[in-house]
Amino acid sequence: MMKHLLGIVLLATSCIAAAAAERRGTGDLGIVVERAVGAVQIIDTTQRRVLSRVTGLGDLSHASAVFSRDGRHAFVFGRDGGLSKIDLLTGSLVKRIVQAGNSIGGAISDDGRLVAVSNYKPGGVRFFDSESLEPVADIPAAYGVDNELSKVVGLVDAPGRRFLFTLYDAGEIWMAHYPSGGVPKITKFAHVGELPYDALITGDGRHYVAGLFGEDGLAHIDLWADKPVVRRILDHYGRGEEKLPVYKMPHLEGWARAGDRMFLPAVGRHELLVIDATTFAEIGRVAVHGQPIFAIARPDGRQVWVNFAHPLNDTIQVIDTQNLEIIHEFTPGKAALHMEFTPRGENVWISVRDADRVDIYDTQTFERLETLPMDKPSGIFFTARANRIGL
Amino acid sequence: MMKHLLGIVLLATSCIAAAAAERRGTGDLGIVVERAVGAVQIIDTTQRRVLSRVTGLGDLSHASAVFSRDGRHAFVFGRDGGLSKIDLLTGSLVKRIVQAGNSIGGAISDDGRLVAVSNYKPGGVRFFDSESLEPVADIPAAYGVDNELSKVVGLVDAPGRRFLFTLYDAGEIWMAHYPSGGVPKITKFAHVGELPYDALITGDGRHYVAGLFGEDGLAHIDLWADKPVVRRILDHYGRGEEKLPVYKMPHLEGWARAGDRMFLPAVGRHELLVIDATTFAEIGRVAVHGQPIFAIARPDGRQVWVNFAHPLNDTIQVIDTQNLEIIHEFTPGKAALHMEFTPRGENVWISVRDADRVDIYDTQTFERLETLPMDKPSGIFFTARANRIGL
Repeated sequence: MMKHLLGIVLLATSCIAAAAAERRGTGDLGIVVERAVGAVQIIDTTQRRVLSRVTGLGDLSHASAVFSRDGRHAFVFGRDGGLSKIDLLTGSLVKRIVQAGNSIGGAISDDGRLVAVSNYKPGGVRFFDSESLEPVADIPAAYGVDNELSKVVGLVDAPGRRFLFTLYDAGEIWMAHYPSGGVPKITKFAHVGELPYDALITGDGRHYVAGLFGEDGLAHIDLWADKPVVRRILDHYGRGEEKLPVYKMPHLEGWARAGDRMFLPAVGRHELLVIDATTFAEIGRVAVHGQPIFAIARPDGRQVWVNFAHPLNDTIQVIDTQNLEIIHEFTPGKAALHMEFTPRGENVWISVRDADRVDIYDTQTFERLETLPMDKPSGIFFTARANRIGL
Repeated sequence: MMKHLLGIVLLATSCIAAAAAERRGTGDLGIVVERAVGAVQIIDTTQRRVLSRVTGLGDLSHASAVFSRDGRHAFVFGRDGGLSKIDLLTGSLVKRIVQAGNSIGGAISDDGRLVAVSNYKPGGVRFFDSESLEPVADIPAAYGVDNELSKVVGLVDAPGRRFLFTLYDAGEIWMAHYPSGGVPKITKFAHVGELPYDALITGDGRHYVAGLFGEDGLAHIDLWADKPVVRRILDHYGRGEEKLPVYKMPHLEGWARAGDRMFLPAVGRHELLVIDATTFAEIGRVAVHGQPIFAIARPDGRQVWVNFAHPLNDTIQVIDTQNLEIIHEFTPGKAALHMEFTPRGENVWISVRDADRVDIYDTQTFERLETLPMDKPSGIFFTARANRIGL
């Protein structure tokens, strides 16, 4: 009898311990993509450590992620059409569907209910219920007289359950609006330019900008205009007449906003472009170490951190956004691919793929605070993204 | 024996259920202050409901709150010098200290480790470890030849473990810098103007602006300058020569930024001022329903929502920040005191004190989605604030 009572007491005690261990905030969580092995590491930015690892996520080349509005779940978009819902608290895969043959990137609606995925094959965007991952809607990217399906890229969310995306083959931008309980509506912008390959939306959800692989310049839409239209900005942005050798096209999501300026990686040149954030006119250039890939602002906008294309991808430069000087340069290691700032910017996490490491730096002192072993880490995504427009 | 085994199985089952119930994300949590009864309601912005209630928090007049960087804990600053740490997941009071005789407002460092409280009595700022609430540092606001202690107001955090605050009686602004593991440093700005009564810092941590009760104009510091100095902006901002009757001084934290403009409640006039966000010059005015108290931008900056001083405090107006038109006006009820937007702006929560209600609206359709009974609700604070600078 006593033995059984003791058993019950022990069980109750361990039960309380287990419950306490599982109960934690999610505002300081995130994931790091281990691309080669189809896994993600779940991390904690307060303790700066790994909490758990989730495997079996398929092909995670160019994988990205968005988060549920409570910060508990990550939705990971794989290259193989896989959409995986991960529970950050239990470190487990809740559900995985293969929703297309070949896909790239996704988004989540401002109310957190719709997850959207942009697909190369079949070309289009598919929408899923964020709770169940059940399909909700499908927009085939049919264009031209033959209704061919275009690859879709540059998918972002905008306020009011809106999504914008770009049809690579068609040279079009579409906006899908899914009012809660209302009738979906698609607005199409044609002839935006040749081969739009990537896009971004500004943090206020106002400006959508698509990069063009087939010609110079960028396509811009002011979504706050009474009648939004596409116009060309930065006419000379691109590979230019001479078609410069480009090791890797820069990521547009990397556009850094700092006050009334934006910083944009030049294509094929060792330069950042400084852009007026209101008119989108070029107002200056900054010479940098190599062909920039990402130029990312610290959340306060005081610094921009830049990484570079192969073979100069072992280096990071930090630029003061006010005097445009390079205030710091360091060499974390081969293939320093991705950077993610903590939400208030005191730290930055950097994946150093070829060194199988993620390094964490203090952005004031530039001191390395921690280094975490990972298997070929690439993208890093923190739950604070759930609270931001267009990420 | 079987009976005991059954007991163990039942216990284990309920244990699993309890653990599952307690495990949840914190990104969609928040608190509503019930001022008269010294309590807070813990709410969920996804389900739009109350989760639990924490009582025994003392005098919550003008109470405000900040959050731990994981979003699990709220730090509530009462008027009676009380500092309460609340666990949003368990709905319990972790610790409460009375750290001064009379206090107003607080802040948390960008790394989440230091909680600061601004005190009227004894005048100064006290710092506490966010884990333990043990005292870490104390800055008495001593000024003048007699080293009198000034009331402290307008306390905010800035990047790099910095805090700014204003000495009401002394007419000074101080910046305290607590480098992690380094030596604390205080920078003092004297003669900023008469009776600075409140202040704000912009969302990028760059501009600190203090309102003056004793004279017109505002004191401004550009913290990004090589040598930050105080200058006067908006010379005519204030009660003016005629000393207009002012029912309530507007809150400066309510300054709304929308793109390159800011919207500022006029003092004593039925107007909002439109300010250039770079130069801080006035560029226009908008006529509104009454003396504005808070003018708060929806997170995307497309709309500004305004509430008003007594006796016109039953009304809210919504202004389009682009064409400056009032696009919506409604009457939630007597004493519509506070508004808090969900982080991506799709909903707004409004406390209607005299109706003992919190109402939740869709910001696109202006439809009321939910109404929650509360006891004289005032301030509303969501965990997403943990990810923002200067809140």
